[in-house]
Amino acid sequence: MVKKVLIANRGEIALRVLRACKELGIATVAVHSTADNAAMHVRLADESVCIGPPPSRDSYLNIPSILAACEISGADAVHPGYGFLSENARFAEILDAHEITFIGPTAEHIRLMGDKIEAKRTAQRLGIPVVPGSAGAVTDDAEALAVADDIGFPVLVKASAGGGGRGMKVAKTRDDLSLALQTARQEAGAAFGDDAVYIEKYLEKPRHIEVQVFGDGAGNAIHLGERDCSLQRRHQKVWEEANSPALTPEQRAKIGDVCANAMAQMRYRGAGTIEFLYENGEFYFIEMNTRLQVEHPVTEAITGLDLVHEQIRVASAEGLSVTQDQVKFTGHAIECRINAEDARTFAPSPGKISYYHAPGGLGVRVDSGVYQGYSIPPFYDSLIGKLIVHGRDRVDCMRRLRRALDEIVVDGVKTTLPLFRDLVDNPDIAAGAYDIHWLEKYLAASATS
Amino acid sequence: MVKKVLIANRGEIALRVLRACKELGIATVAVHSTADNAAMHVRLADESVCIGPPPSRDSYLNIPSILAACEISGADAVHPGYGFLSENARFAEILDAHEITFIGPTAEHIRLMGDKIEAKRTAQRLGIPVVPGSAGAVTDDAEALAVADDIGFPVLVKASAGGGGRGMKVAKTRDDLSLALQTARQEAGAAFGDDAVYIEKYLEKPRHIEVQVFGDGAGNAIHLGERDCSLQRRHQKVWEEANSPALTPEQRAKIGDVCANAMAQMRYRGAGTIEFLYENGEFYFIEMNTRLQVEHPVTEAITGLDLVHEQIRVASAEGLSVTQDQVKFTGHAIECRINAEDARTFAPSPGKISYYHAPGGLGVRVDSGVYQGYSIPPFYDSLIGKLIVHGRDRVDCMRRLRRALDEIVVDGVKTTLPLFRDLVDNPDIAAGAYDIHWLEKYLAASATS
Repeated sequence: MVKKVLIANRGEIALRVLRACKELGIATVAVHSTADNAAMHVRLADESVCIGPPPSRDSYLNIPSILAACEISGADAVHPGYGFLSENARFAEILDAHEITFIGPTAEHIRLMGDKIEAKRTAQRLGIPVVPGSAGAVTDDAEALAVADDIGFPVLVKASAGGGGRGMKVAKTRDDLSLALQTARQEAGAAFGDDAVYIEKYLEKPRHIEVQVFGDGAGNAIHLGERDCSLQRRHQKVWEEANSPALTPEQRAKIGDVCANAMAQMRYRGAGTIEFLYENGEFYFIEMNTRLQVEHPVTEAITGLDLVHEQIRVASAEGLSVTQDQVKFTGHAIECRINAEDARTFAPSPGKISYYHAPGGLGVRVDSGVYQGYSIPPFYDSLIGKLIVHGRDRVDCMRRLRRALDEIVVDGVKTTLPLFRDLVDNPDIAAGAYDIHWLEKYLAASATS
Repeated sequence: MVKKVLIANRGEIALRVLRACKELGIATVAVHSTADNAAMHVRLADESVCIGPPPSRDSYLNIPSILAACEISGADAVHPGYGFLSENARFAEILDAHEITFIGPTAEHIRLMGDKIEAKRTAQRLGIPVVPGSAGAVTDDAEALAVADDIGFPVLVKASAGGGGRGMKVAKTRDDLSLALQTARQEAGAAFGDDAVYIEKYLEKPRHIEVQVFGDGAGNAIHLGERDCSLQRRHQKVWEEANSPALTPEQRAKIGDVCANAMAQMRYRGAGTIEFLYENGEFYFIEMNTRLQVEHPVTEAITGLDLVHEQIRVASAEGLSVTQDQVKFTGHAIECRINAEDARTFAPSPGKISYYHAPGGLGVRVDSGVYQGYSIPPFYDSLIGKLIVHGRDRVDCMRRLRRALDEIVVDGVKTTLPLFRDLVDNPDIAAGAYDIHWLEKYLAASATS
């Protein structure tokens, strides 16, 4: 087992990883920017190293600083959390070269899945269902038109190097295609330094359903069911559930097995998430994230597994603690991402938390790096905590969520808690009847009402 | 299902019951003394009624005031929590007479188990193993000596109406017996208004192991495994575990089935706990508590069941939600009772909580009625919260407990948290090698060191 883990992240995920390390008897090293001196993960870590000022490129994204912190502290492993360097293949390679264990997949797999066209090609080869579309980047408009005619309009033009919705355009008809290609290429070039785009079938009202996978790097892989993350605002997940209200146990087992088999073939190591759009009973691969997801706790709630423990086990070549047969799904879980933002305008609301009270009791988990008196710095994303609720079934879970939302208090900054208090009483949400566009429409309607 | 529950209690258990009611869509009525105006369960209840001043006999124990609160609020059910009126048969009868559902067993069963001699006789008749001893109260010293000779010294002289260690004396030899009888009778008479005493085999180093049972009142009953509550100070439980580190799965199933069968024969309704001393592989019945226990959350953690939900179901004649076959035990759970007391002298420490931060993350539950700025009143018991930790096995659970104890902050009053921070690192505790005397000895040794 690794002995001392440097946590190359901040906020709630740094604390999440720190907790797991403590629970495994592993020493912890926090790294932090000068803006994060008072962060809880820094307070609770065995050691901490300041790695520079904000913004992140001067600290959390600064590979030489993090390597120096490993050197100073004698850490023999790095957990990257999510975001920052978690999907940076170069970082994984550099750690390998320094004989420091990267708690994540191989650099090769990170790179493979980081390239959207390569990822889709790989998924298809491994038997994962993909969205019909161009075989790779489309270089001229005539080729694009031929592909679009073949799969049928509407189609989506997407940046090969993309993410977060940038470089993504819908062409509803043949007439729209040329402009969509041009705009997507321009955005992609500006955002990613690469103007390659490709074409896919556009789904009208899909759900976002993702499968949690885990591989031991030696050809064994399992799935831990799916999460439904359809409730999104500007491509950012807001509310996540496990399992999806849309799937039957048979569909769950089928897509899960497809994903686990693919990972076994790849000899994938560590935690991964295979993201799909889902419509009319069909799954369409979007991308694979080669890291822990923000929403991993809902999977932990229904499986009883600690995913960070599993990550550390696998990285230490100890293998997974369970086989597929031993994975059982119990009840239903929902996570709300609490952001320090105005719940109507979504403007960030950094500042000092003047009062904080966490909800408690059975089936309620809070993952948060904040505390009363903590000042949320303005330099980072606005996620300040996650409220995760587990119940025997979805109805039970929703009621428990409602009472937990009644209990939680965060004063001094604006938060998205009022949004969740609305959502938990919404009949569409109660029915599980939502797609990836639902929340945007709901917010637009609320804004004008 | 009952529609509006009046919660005839205070503190963490009032909040516990309130949460369960909210989760079942049931309206809640809090009752409170004038000292508890600012209590969290009062703030979160749908309605609240002040029922008088402290001490408890003028409010939480005042049956006419509670009945009046039912009348005012239109509550159709009462949950008594633990302590106060929870094992008062007369209260249950009065509620029955007013056609208000008592969320608990029948008055007859409360009365039966409230009389220690009757309880033991009933247990024996139902096949529950009991401590060898006198068939009932011993009225003269010669009879007592004959019984003691028969079961062998040392013996324990106990008050029939007793509890909390009062009216309880050990006689190590024949010579000690007369004085033990006399002292026990005097204490019993003074404490309970009843000087009847009985004699039992005295166990040298037993564990306290209790079985959680549940009956539907129609002849169906299940057990939910056992809890080990051996770590006690002055007969007050301090740290509780499920399952017991001392039992094998076979022993667990065997004693559990014995208890469940007994409850089925009694047509017992609701939650109950059958308490045993356990030594050298043998169980000896002590008493049965006909109510929810403080330590019920460890059972919830390992079974995934909500015991208050089950209580409300059964009281509503909806039956238990599970059969014995569906009850599965997963992992290990530990509860620490956090008291507002000096961790060395155990002197109560009421007053204002100047800072409070609850631990979070996977497998950690906090049940507490306190919050930052709350003033703990001096009139009630000193329990201010329970920290419950669940892990995949006992080692995992202990490590998680340690990290949760690192996170929790309660400032402004003294608490027993430092005791738990010591216990979690103690090798005897790590080995599960403790009996009901262990903690007293440990505290005595700490006091002199």
